[in-house]
Amino acid sequence: MVNGLVREKILALLRNGNYVSGEELSKKLNISRTAIWKHIKALERKGYKIEGKPNLGYRLVEKPDLLFPHEIKAGLKTKKFGCKIFHFKEVTSTQEIAKKLAIQGYEEGTIVVAEKQTQGRGRVGREWFSPFGGVWLSIILKPKIPPQHAQKITLLVAVAIAKTIRKMYNLDAKIKWPNDVLIGNRKVCGILVEASGEADRVNYMVVGVGVNINFDFRKVQPKLAETAISISQALGKKVSRVEFVQNFLVEMEKAYNIFEAGGFNQILDEWKKLSSILGCKVKIVSYKETFVGEAIDVDEDGFLLVKLEDGLIRRVVAGDVYVRKV
Amino acid sequence: MVNGLVREKILALLRNGNYVSGEELSKKLNISRTAIWKHIKALERKGYKIEGKPNLGYRLVEKPDLLFPHEIKAGLKTKKFGCKIFHFKEVTSTQEIAKKLAIQGYEEGTIVVAEKQTQGRGRVGREWFSPFGGVWLSIILKPKIPPQHAQKITLLVAVAIAKTIRKMYNLDAKIKWPNDVLIGNRKVCGILVEASGEADRVNYMVVGVGVNINFDFRKVQPKLAETAISISQALGKKVSRVEFVQNFLVEMEKAYNIFEAGGFNQILDEWKKLSSILGCKVKIVSYKETFVGEAIDVDEDGFLLVKLEDGLIRRVVAGDVYVRKV
Repeated sequence: MVNGLVREKILALLRNGNYVSGEELSKKLNISRTAIWKHIKALERKGYKIEGKPNLGYRLVEKPDLLFPHEIKAGLKTKKFGCKIFHFKEVTSTQEIAKKLAIQGYEEGTIVVAEKQTQGRGRVGREWFSPFGGVWLSIILKPKIPPQHAQKITLLVAVAIAKTIRKMYNLDAKIKWPNDVLIGNRKVCGILVEASGEADRVNYMVVGVGVNINFDFRKVQPKLAETAISISQALGKKVSRVEFVQNFLVEMEKAYNIFEAGGFNQILDEWKKLSSILGCKVKIVSYKETFVGEAIDVDEDGFLLVKLEDGLIRRVVAGDVYVRKV
Repeated sequence: MVNGLVREKILALLRNGNYVSGEELSKKLNISRTAIWKHIKALERKGYKIEGKPNLGYRLVEKPDLLFPHEIKAGLKTKKFGCKIFHFKEVTSTQEIAKKLAIQGYEEGTIVVAEKQTQGRGRVGREWFSPFGGVWLSIILKPKIPPQHAQKITLLVAVAIAKTIRKMYNLDAKIKWPNDVLIGNRKVCGILVEASGEADRVNYMVVGVGVNINFDFRKVQPKLAETAISISQALGKKVSRVEFVQNFLVEMEKAYNIFEAGGFNQILDEWKKLSSILGCKVKIVSYKETFVGEAIDVDEDGFLLVKLEDGLIRRVVAGDVYVRKV
C-alpha cells in the first residue's frame, strides 16, 4: 500500500475525534506500530494536529485548511461531480489544467482545485486575484448541447454558487449577470465558463469558479477591497473550505441533473429570483459598444434583455454591467 | 551549434543540386571535414540521398517524402502561417497536440504536422484514416470573432484546400458542405474546425485538415476506396507533400487575411463557385433529424439553406449531406 493510501486510512479511522490506540491502527492496517507512528508524524507535517497519549492512543484534534482530495471525498454526497479530483498547492490556473485534462479525455465531473493560482483568469482574459485561502476550482463538463447554449451553464453555476453560500452561511448572495456572485454589491465569486467544440456540438466545457473564502481583501489586496469581499469578511470568521467545496459540488450536480433532464427553465427561475440587476437601470459595456437602459429580463438562452430609453429591447450576449445609481 | 541546425545548414548549401566540396562545407560551417561526413551520413539515415564524389564533393540527389519543418520552411511564402512548426513522425492526433499548444499560449499560425496519426478524428468524433503519405495538419488561429461565427472558418479552409489542389494539380476539386473537399464525388480532404471560447469571443480555434496525398486507398484501405481518393490516385503519380503544405499555407494566409479584413463575402463567393451541392437534391442527416430538400444556398454565417418540398427553407448548422441521385 502506498504511503498516501495508508495515511488516508489512518485519517478515516481518526475522523470521529475519539482516541484510537496505536495497536488498533497497527492491526487494522497490518503494519507495525513504528510505521503507524511515522505516518502520524508525516500527517502532522501536512498540517494535521494529532494528539498522542499513552494508554489512550491517537486523536485527531485539527485538520489543516487545505483542499486535499481525500478530505473533499470524505462524506461527499455526489455521484459524478468530484469523481476525480486533481489538487495543487500552487498552479498557474486550474482552468488551464482542466482544459488539458478534458482534451486527454477525462470524464465529466472531474475537478481541479488549487490552494493558490499564480495566473488566475476571469472573463476576457482579466487577471483574477487568487491567493491562498480561496477556492479556485475548475470542473470538466460534457453536456450534449450546441455551443450557443453554453451561456446557460454560466447561469446554472451562478445559481449553484449563490445557493451554496445562502444555505451554508445564511448570507444574502445575489447574482450579477453574467458571471459574478455578490454579497452586498461586492464580488464574492467569479465564474468563467469556456466551451470547446464544433459548429453544432460542445465537445467539453470547463467551468471555473473563484470563491473568496478565508482571506481579507483589506489586508492582502486593499485595492480590491471596495469591490470584492470574502466569506470570512462577511461572516467575521473563517469557515471550512473543504465543506464549501463539498456543498457546492452537491448544488452543481443537482442543478446540472435538472439541466440535463431539460429543466433549464427551473434553473432560470431560480436565477431570476437571485438576480441583483433585474429591474435596475444599467450601463452595459461590451467589446463593441456602451449603452444604458433597464435590465428587464434574461431570455431562455441566458442572454440579458435591456430596454433602451426609446423602448427598443437589446439582447446582450456578454459584457460588463454597471448598475446606475438613481 | 546543435546537430539539427548544422544539418539544416548543410542541406541549405546543397539545396540547388550542385556539387559542394567537403572543404567548402567545412569552412562555411567551421567544423572539420570528418564532422561534415558524419552529418552527411546522419542525413542519409533520415532519408536524404546524397552523392559523394572525390574532387567534386557532395550533391543532394533526392529528398525524403517527409514533412520536416526545415523543408516546409525553405521557401515558404507566408508571414504568419507556419511561423512555428511542430513535426511528428507518429502522433495520436495533430488536433489534440495543437489544442494543448493553444492553451499554452502558442501564437496564431503555429502548425502541427504528422506523418501518421494513430487516432485521427473527423467531425463528431469519427475515425479519420491517417496513414503515412497524407498531410495531417492542424493550425492554431485566434480570430476576434464570437463563437457563432466559427463556421465561417470551416468554409474558408475548404476554399483554401480546394484552390491549392486546383492550382497545383489542375484537378477539379469541389467542396461538399460543411467540411469535405472532393475529387469526382470522392473525399480527398476532410476539415475539422474546433473553437474554444467564452460566450462572446473565441479564445482560440484549431483547424485540422486531413489530405489524402501519396497513398492508394485500393491498396491500404480498400473499404474506403469507393468514397475516398488521394491526390496520387487522381494524378497517377506521387507529388511532393512538402510543396502541398507550403502552397496550402499560402492560400490559408491569403484567405484568412481577407477574412480578418472583413471580406468574408469574398470567401463565400469563392466557396459557392466551388460547391458541389448547391442546386442539388440532398438528404440531411443531423444528430436530431433527417430530411430532404434542395440545397439552395449558404448564408452569411456559413449555414446551409435547404428548401423543403413544401417551400419552407431550413437553416442547417451541421450534419451529413447526401446528394440524391435524380
